[in-house]
Amino acid sequence: MRLFSTVFAFLLGFATLAQAADAKVYHLTLATTWGEQVPFLGTAPADLAKLVDTMSNGRLKIRVDSPNKHKAPFGVMDMVKAGQYDLAYTASYYYKGKDYKLVFFTTVPFGMLISEQYAWYNYGGGKELAAKVYGEHGLISYPMGTTGMQMGGWFKKEIKSLADLQGLKFRIPGQGGEVMAKIGVTAMSTPPGELYTALERNTIDAVEWISPVFDLAMGFPKLANYYYTGWQEPASEIQLLANKKKMDTLPADLRAILETAVATVGSQLMNQATNANANAWANISKDYPNVKVQQFPADVMAALKKAAKEIEEEQAAKDPVFKEILESQRAYIAKVRPWTLMGEYGYLKQLEK
Amino acid sequence: MRLFSTVFAFLLGFATLAQAADAKVYHLTLATTWGEQVPFLGTAPADLAKLVDTMSNGRLKIRVDSPNKHKAPFGVMDMVKAGQYDLAYTASYYYKGKDYKLVFFTTVPFGMLISEQYAWYNYGGGKELAAKVYGEHGLISYPMGTTGMQMGGWFKKEIKSLADLQGLKFRIPGQGGEVMAKIGVTAMSTPPGELYTALERNTIDAVEWISPVFDLAMGFPKLANYYYTGWQEPASEIQLLANKKKMDTLPADLRAILETAVATVGSQLMNQATNANANAWANISKDYPNVKVQQFPADVMAALKKAAKEIEEEQAAKDPVFKEILESQRAYIAKVRPWTLMGEYGYLKQLEK
Repeated sequence: MRLFSTVFAFLLGFATLAQAADAKVYHLTLATTWGEQVPFLGTAPADLAKLVDTMSNGRLKIRVDSPNKHKAPFGVMDMVKAGQYDLAYTASYYYKGKDYKLVFFTTVPFGMLISEQYAWYNYGGGKELAAKVYGEHGLISYPMGTTGMQMGGWFKKEIKSLADLQGLKFRIPGQGGEVMAKIGVTAMSTPPGELYTALERNTIDAVEWISPVFDLAMGFPKLANYYYTGWQEPASEIQLLANKKKMDTLPADLRAILETAVATVGSQLMNQATNANANAWANISKDYPNVKVQQFPADVMAALKKAAKEIEEEQAAKDPVFKEILESQRAYIAKVRPWTLMGEYGYLKQLEK
Repeated sequence: MRLFSTVFAFLLGFATLAQAADAKVYHLTLATTWGEQVPFLGTAPADLAKLVDTMSNGRLKIRVDSPNKHKAPFGVMDMVKAGQYDLAYTASYYYKGKDYKLVFFTTVPFGMLISEQYAWYNYGGGKELAAKVYGEHGLISYPMGTTGMQMGGWFKKEIKSLADLQGLKFRIPGQGGEVMAKIGVTAMSTPPGELYTALERNTIDAVEWISPVFDLAMGFPKLANYYYTGWQEPASEIQLLANKKKMDTLPADLRAILETAVATVGSQLMNQATNANANAWANISKDYPNVKVQQFPADVMAALKKAAKEIEEEQAAKDPVFKEILESQRAYIAKVRPWTLMGEYGYLKQLEK
C-alpha cells in the first residue's frame, strides 16, 4: 500500500521523498560474540532487535547471528569493518592485538568505575576520542551495557605477599594477564572449557573469570576458597560496533531509534548484571561457607600498579593516540574520584560505624 | 499526502487502519517541577521532547511547561492525576504528605545506592510495587534519572558527638529532617531564597541542600567549612509521572518511543550529574581550601539509624503497602549490599593500600 500511495502522490506531483523513505523497511545484520546461553550478554542483541522493531513499527529489522552461525566470536569487529555484517555486539578489548588503545573503551587495570567511565565518555571527552579511534576503522562504537566490577580471581591458597605469586600458575587473560606476568606470575591461557578440570587437577593454581554469576556457573567455588577483590577490569563496558557507511544510509528517525534502543538495552544489562551477581553471591555464600572474599596485600597492590603503569607507558611511547586517551582518562580520574570517594564510597564507609 | 494515500487505499479496498493511525500526530503536555535554569533537571524535559520528536519523525509532540507557566512546582502530580497535564517531571518524595510510601521511589535514609535501586526496581519487584502504588492514583511512574548521592549538609562547627547536634538550627527538609528532629536537632524550613543570608547571619547553624554542583551555586562553601557525608538521600531518583488513561491512547510504537526516550534521557542525567559534581567539587576544593569533608561520629550514626527505623515502623503500622515496600527494599539491600561491598567498594578500598 505504501508503494501505491507513493506512486499516487507522484502522479499528483507531490514531494514524495519523505514519504518514500518513511515507508521503506531497513534491514541490518548483527554478529554477536556471545551465544544465547550466556547470561544477559547472550540475550541483549535480541532485546535490541525487538525494541527497535516496536519503536519503528516494523520499519527497522535487525537479524541477530550468534557465533553458532557466523563461527567467529572474536572476528565480529573485522566482519563489520569489511561490511559482511552491519553491527557487532562485542567488547573492544578483545581486539587489543590489532589496536591496543581499544582497551580504553572497555576497561583498564586500575581504571574508572562504571559511573565515572560513563561520565568521562559522555561529558569528559571520551566520545570524541572514540569517534577518532573507531573512525579510522570505518566504525562507530556505542556503549551498550556493562557486566560491572570483575573479581580478581579464585585462588586455592591465600596470597599473603608478593612472594606467594612467584611462579603461580594463574589463568588470567588480557591486560590483567600482562600485568600479572610482569610481577612474576606464570600467566596461563587455558581454554574456558578446560578451566574446571585444570583447577581441579592443579594444572593451574588460580583462575580469573568474571564475577559471581559467571563464576558460579563455572563451578569454581567448589574448588577454591579465596575469592579476590578485582583491580584489572573495574567497568567492563560492552560495545555495539556499527559500520559507519551503513549507519549513514539510515533516515534520522531510524538512526535515533537504534541509538536510543542501544542506550536503553545497555542500561538494562547493567541492572541485570547487578541483580544476577547479587543473587549468585548470596548462593555462593550459602552453599560454600568456606569461600572468603580477600584483598590483595599491600606489596602485591604496589607491584600491580607499577607494572600496569609500565605497560601503559610502553604503549603510549608507541602510539600518540594511545597517549592522548591515557592522559584524558588519568586526568578525568583525578577529577572524578574525589567525588566518588566523598559520595557513594563515603556513604558506605560511614555506615560501617 | 497521508490523507490522500489513505483515501486512495480505501478506494482500492485495502485495510487502512494502521496507516491512518501511523499518520496521526499525538500531542502531550508536560509540567515540570524545576525551571530551565536548574542544572540538568531543568533541561531534561526539553531533551526528552526533542528525542521523542526525532524518533517519531514528528508524530509525537511534547509541550513542556515550566513552573513559570503552570505556577505549581509541587502541584504537578495532582495536575496529571486530574488530567490537566499528561506528564509531570518531578520527585515522588515531594508528595509524602499525600502518600508517605511514595518516598521509596525516590530515595530513603540509609537506603540503596543508585545501582542497587535500579536493580531492585527492574528485577527485584520494585516496578510491580510502583505499578500498584501509582495505579491507585491513575498514574504510571517511570524512573528518569538521578542526581546521585546527596551530601549530609554544611556545618559551621564540627560535629564531634551527638551532644553537638542538640538544639542545632539545621535546615533539612523531608524524611532527613524528620529523622534529625527526632535526635534533637531544631529542624528549620527556611525557604531556599533565604538560606545564604540565614547561614551568614547565624539564623541557622547548618544547611543541607543537595550536592557539590548545587551547593556551590548557593554559595555555602563561603560560609561553612564542614561538609558532611550523606546518609539521608543516597539515590535521589527522579520520576516522569504519566496519566495512565492518556498513555493508553498512544499506539504501541509511540508508547515504546516515549518510554525508551525516558530511560535514555534519565541515564544521560545521571552522567551529567556525576560530571557536574566532580567539576564543582574540584572547584570548591581549589577555591575554598578550608572546606573539609567529614563523617558523622559513631554515636550520631547510631542515633540516626535508630530514629530512621522508628519512623519507618510508624508508617508501616499505618499502611500495609508501605510495609510491603519497606520489607521488599530491606530484603533487597540485604542481598545486594554484600555484592556492592565486595565489588566496587572493595575495589576502592583495596586501592587505598
